[in-house]
Amino acid sequence: MRTVNVALGDRSYPIHVGAGLLGQGSLIKPYLKRPRVAIVTNDVVAPLMLEKLVAGLRDAGIAYSTIVLPDGEAHKDWQTLNLIFDGLLSTHCDRSTTLIALGGGVVGDMTGFAAAAYQRGVPFIQIPTTLLSQVDSSVGGKTAINHPLGKNMIGAFHQPRLVIADVDCLVSLPPRELRTGLAEVIKHALIRDNARVGWLEENMEALLGCDRERLAEAVAWNCAIKAGVVAVDETEQGERAHLNFGHTFGHAIEAGLGYGEWSHGEAVAAGMIMATELSAWLGMLAAADVARVRSLVERAGLPANGPKLGSERYIALMQHDKKVADGKLRLVLLQSLGSAVIRDSVPLPEIAKVIDDCC
Amino acid sequence: MRTVNVALGDRSYPIHVGAGLLGQGSLIKPYLKRPRVAIVTNDVVAPLMLEKLVAGLRDAGIAYSTIVLPDGEAHKDWQTLNLIFDGLLSTHCDRSTTLIALGGGVVGDMTGFAAAAYQRGVPFIQIPTTLLSQVDSSVGGKTAINHPLGKNMIGAFHQPRLVIADVDCLVSLPPRELRTGLAEVIKHALIRDNARVGWLEENMEALLGCDRERLAEAVAWNCAIKAGVVAVDETEQGERAHLNFGHTFGHAIEAGLGYGEWSHGEAVAAGMIMATELSAWLGMLAAADVARVRSLVERAGLPANGPKLGSERYIALMQHDKKVADGKLRLVLLQSLGSAVIRDSVPLPEIAKVIDDCC
Repeated sequence: MRTVNVALGDRSYPIHVGAGLLGQGSLIKPYLKRPRVAIVTNDVVAPLMLEKLVAGLRDAGIAYSTIVLPDGEAHKDWQTLNLIFDGLLSTHCDRSTTLIALGGGVVGDMTGFAAAAYQRGVPFIQIPTTLLSQVDSSVGGKTAINHPLGKNMIGAFHQPRLVIADVDCLVSLPPRELRTGLAEVIKHALIRDNARVGWLEENMEALLGCDRERLAEAVAWNCAIKAGVVAVDETEQGERAHLNFGHTFGHAIEAGLGYGEWSHGEAVAAGMIMATELSAWLGMLAAADVARVRSLVERAGLPANGPKLGSERYIALMQHDKKVADGKLRLVLLQSLGSAVIRDSVPLPEIAKVIDDCC
Repeated sequence: MRTVNVALGDRSYPIHVGAGLLGQGSLIKPYLKRPRVAIVTNDVVAPLMLEKLVAGLRDAGIAYSTIVLPDGEAHKDWQTLNLIFDGLLSTHCDRSTTLIALGGGVVGDMTGFAAAAYQRGVPFIQIPTTLLSQVDSSVGGKTAINHPLGKNMIGAFHQPRLVIADVDCLVSLPPRELRTGLAEVIKHALIRDNARVGWLEENMEALLGCDRERLAEAVAWNCAIKAGVVAVDETEQGERAHLNFGHTFGHAIEAGLGYGEWSHGEAVAAGMIMATELSAWLGMLAAADVARVRSLVERAGLPANGPKLGSERYIALMQHDKKVADGKLRLVLLQSLGSAVIRDSVPLPEIAKVIDDCC
């Protein structure tokens, strides 16, 4: 088992990464105020993984109740969040009860926000079950639900007490789910660690083949990179924006096609290519760098080209993104492979040209 | 104008107290990230006070939008909270928009929670318009909405950037609203400041007569007392529980009669008498002390005796209160006038006896 520490002062927490961790209640017990938890999961994850978690809790003498939500981003709303509150209140959970999120990003986001808001804040533990949530959403404490007028518009920064990333959970993932996680893996290397770009070039096939040892290594270094970014900018005032590399373009793709048409990772992958091409166009990257990024994305089975929405529509959608400050289009670009930079002064025609080239 | 500072490190904020403050946009402007606010108020307060606030904002060059909620505790729920989010999103409020709560405790609690959750947290300013909210709910950062299974079950600790307590707002209050605020005023003196017990004995008639100078003095020292308690225990782990003096009994009255039958302050007043009598019964107060408390409550026009629910029902309701830790009944009592203490070992028959005597 590897352990990555997320250093946030008195909100610091460990991420345990490895195989066979789900059933080890003894990993959880030291992080509880008292041995009572409420597990939140969904109706797809529950049949696959709940029994193993519950058996481990039982062995460790931890009392539990279970709240099973309907699966899917479509249920990341008030109504479903209220199912969590209903469950907590009807089983008399108090401020010393710890919530456990067992599932992917949606379950983690909703459980985290429920934990932030229930009785003004209770502790929670993340057990992310997808590659995307293991390397991304379970690190950093961003929690939220959607509003009909915008994604993730209602939420909180609320850090978990502990994250357990069991790579065994990834074996049962549909291939498309694994690939959507790889987009964020590639992103982390590109914005922070040139050596990991090389590591990915060597290990991409092993990751796609669910090699547990390589997966655990990847999850650990991804969490370490994200934890490093979050540690210096917990509430996204500055540097944390680097994590949005590829995302402003990507959100335009998701919104333009209708959410769910392309997966988040697919949209981010095509978005990263656009941001990389733009970085090269602005003279920061060489053509060979762009080729390496494009090759990594393609080897991960992710789209390197965006859908043909037209550059005007892309830019309109990008300007609608909530990361827009004062109407300026802030973009995360690469000054070299492994090093991100923020630019808010790129002329719109140049952005449009690159979009057209990449679609 | 008096200013009380709430010392909470980087979340510290000032409370300005005085007459004629509502229309002074210049008091607000220094606390905004950018000159754009969203005012949240209700349909009772809006016709009385919104125009004055808006005129001041206009004078100070602050852009604003307005969200008017239905009045009353019955609307302190998800549906009404969503009206705030709908309003913020439809007018394109971003993370640099500051919310202003103009109203009593319900508006303050809901606006504060909306600010805590909107885009994972935006700043907010409290302009409390009732005595209760000026001396109590606007200090300390507790925000919440109700759930059908419990009051204030969903919320956050989210501190305002600024509080403006304009005592002119109190003049239009119905007398019963003023009295409900006086219950918390008496409470603050009893738990923290023996000299203020004497001050209240001297000034009770002036307060009931809406003497602006006395009201401003009272609001200021009440905010200072509450701010002092909150500063040492922001998230209610320990000493902040002193603020619940009279409230465990009081909540039993409110829940037993059905919320809204007695006002919060009326229930707290009768609850304070019970807690005071119990303190005397346990040998901590003299009969003369009890008589002073009873007299203050009666002079404020508040009930000194609780409704006859029967001591068994009281105790059952008190045990249901969320402040119960591990099934024990934790009570805030007085070790002298001006000094609170927490006891969780008072035998139930003694509590029952005092309840029966006080109803």
